[in-house]
Amino acid sequence: MEQPIGVIDSGVGGLTVAVELMRQLPNEKLIYLGDTIRCPYGPRPKEQVKRYTWQMVHYLLEKNIKMLIVACNTATAYTLRELQSTLSIPVIGVIEPGARAAIKNSKNKQIGVIGTEGTIKSEAYPHTLRTIDQSIVVDGLACPSFVPMIESGVLSGPEAEEIVSKTLKPFKNQKNIDTLILGCTHYPIIKDLIQKEMGSHIQVISSGEETAREASLILAYHRSLEQGNRSPVHEFYTTGDTEKFRHVANRWFEEPIQVLNYVSLDPIQSSAN
Amino acid sequence: MEQPIGVIDSGVGGLTVAVELMRQLPNEKLIYLGDTIRCPYGPRPKEQVKRYTWQMVHYLLEKNIKMLIVACNTATAYTLRELQSTLSIPVIGVIEPGARAAIKNSKNKQIGVIGTEGTIKSEAYPHTLRTIDQSIVVDGLACPSFVPMIESGVLSGPEAEEIVSKTLKPFKNQKNIDTLILGCTHYPIIKDLIQKEMGSHIQVISSGEETAREASLILAYHRSLEQGNRSPVHEFYTTGDTEKFRHVANRWFEEPIQVLNYVSLDPIQSSAN
Repeated sequence: MEQPIGVIDSGVGGLTVAVELMRQLPNEKLIYLGDTIRCPYGPRPKEQVKRYTWQMVHYLLEKNIKMLIVACNTATAYTLRELQSTLSIPVIGVIEPGARAAIKNSKNKQIGVIGTEGTIKSEAYPHTLRTIDQSIVVDGLACPSFVPMIESGVLSGPEAEEIVSKTLKPFKNQKNIDTLILGCTHYPIIKDLIQKEMGSHIQVISSGEETAREASLILAYHRSLEQGNRSPVHEFYTTGDTEKFRHVANRWFEEPIQVLNYVSLDPIQSSAN
Repeated sequence: MEQPIGVIDSGVGGLTVAVELMRQLPNEKLIYLGDTIRCPYGPRPKEQVKRYTWQMVHYLLEKNIKMLIVACNTATAYTLRELQSTLSIPVIGVIEPGARAAIKNSKNKQIGVIGTEGTIKSEAYPHTLRTIDQSIVVDGLACPSFVPMIESGVLSGPEAEEIVSKTLKPFKNQKNIDTLILGCTHYPIIKDLIQKEMGSHIQVISSGEETAREASLILAYHRSLEQGNRSPVHEFYTTGDTEKFRHVANRWFEEPIQVLNYVSLDPIQSSAN
């Protein structure tokens, strides 16, 4: 029987990872779970993020997933190692794939990272990059205005351009980076704007693309790639309002969401938090 | 004790993979073995290539390698599956990494592959690409003049430009590809020439870069990355003339080869073939 790939996120941002998985692995069925009601995870204490993440993981394990993608930077930073050492299926986060792609690309070993305040403060990217190569210089920049802008549907036009331009100013002309990691799963939605602002000499790395690429390798490595010409029906679950979820998703992507369900995860916790 | 990564090739071409491994994984020690005396493998019967490859593998296993990179397209096509199912260490070839990178990059799913006659005839790239996504259109082109040109040191200038231009003509303007895989480990040496000829709208994928990227992931996945700030002394072995090997390598790369040794693999076989 075909086993799906599970994708978890604190909300809708991880859909950029899901879309790349569908594109690069067209035979694989996905089950996506977004914890929209408790989003964002960034400001929450570590222990709480771990509890929420495990609730999502248990929900997907019952659906017999063969691989877990943690498509959320905060959840990756706090839970990846624990999930990897506890679960018997492969677990992939969104930080390492972007880091490895940046190392592959960068010629001058000067790499920029943009993300939420939480991700930049956590130093997760510099840590991962320097674990592989201590000589890499990493410049981080928090872009707190990007997620609200993207979620409100401002994806192009003068307003979006101005916000992007203002936000990225510290990186333009002042830093010698040749590679920029989009360290937030929302950012690929405005990748073109960011690329235009940074200039064509900067390689912009989207974690979603790179995470899907690494998922492809790990499935091949474990001989568990689906083959043939399938048209899997993906399933999407949200802990929040299904119409709002569908609305955001359909504004971002060409293909409408197929199966969308509401799911309640530990409702006492979620209403208490 | 630190365990090295083993790299095998039929000759010097795999050095492009070795150089990328050194760049992307600066803490890892490499042991490279090039079977220069019996190069090229392309025209040889499958069973012979398998026997030669296994001789190289046994030689490196005695050096306690933690991972094997088969940096040769012919050896990858003929032996990868067997090596992967027989050895207890991870084994990575050069075909799948390039294929996955091309799938990640291509927007129109039209991918070109250039390589030796043997590699193009073997259909190894189309097969690998379509195993992941049946809808991909692959155009292959054999470039028999590239390896002799590169090995003779003609790496730039009018003569090289003319050969590259003539050879790639069938791909220029006539094919709708947006991504080109360099399906031969020699070709990265003239990547700039190929990129210039194809135009900046074509993404040129170098298997060496992608193979090193995937080696990085698999080492991280197995928790066997070397960390800290090491300066490993790599070792190079050739079954052929050491001075010739050093000469070619030093013409291609900035850093001179450190330790270079002659090694005899089954000399009766090699002199008989």
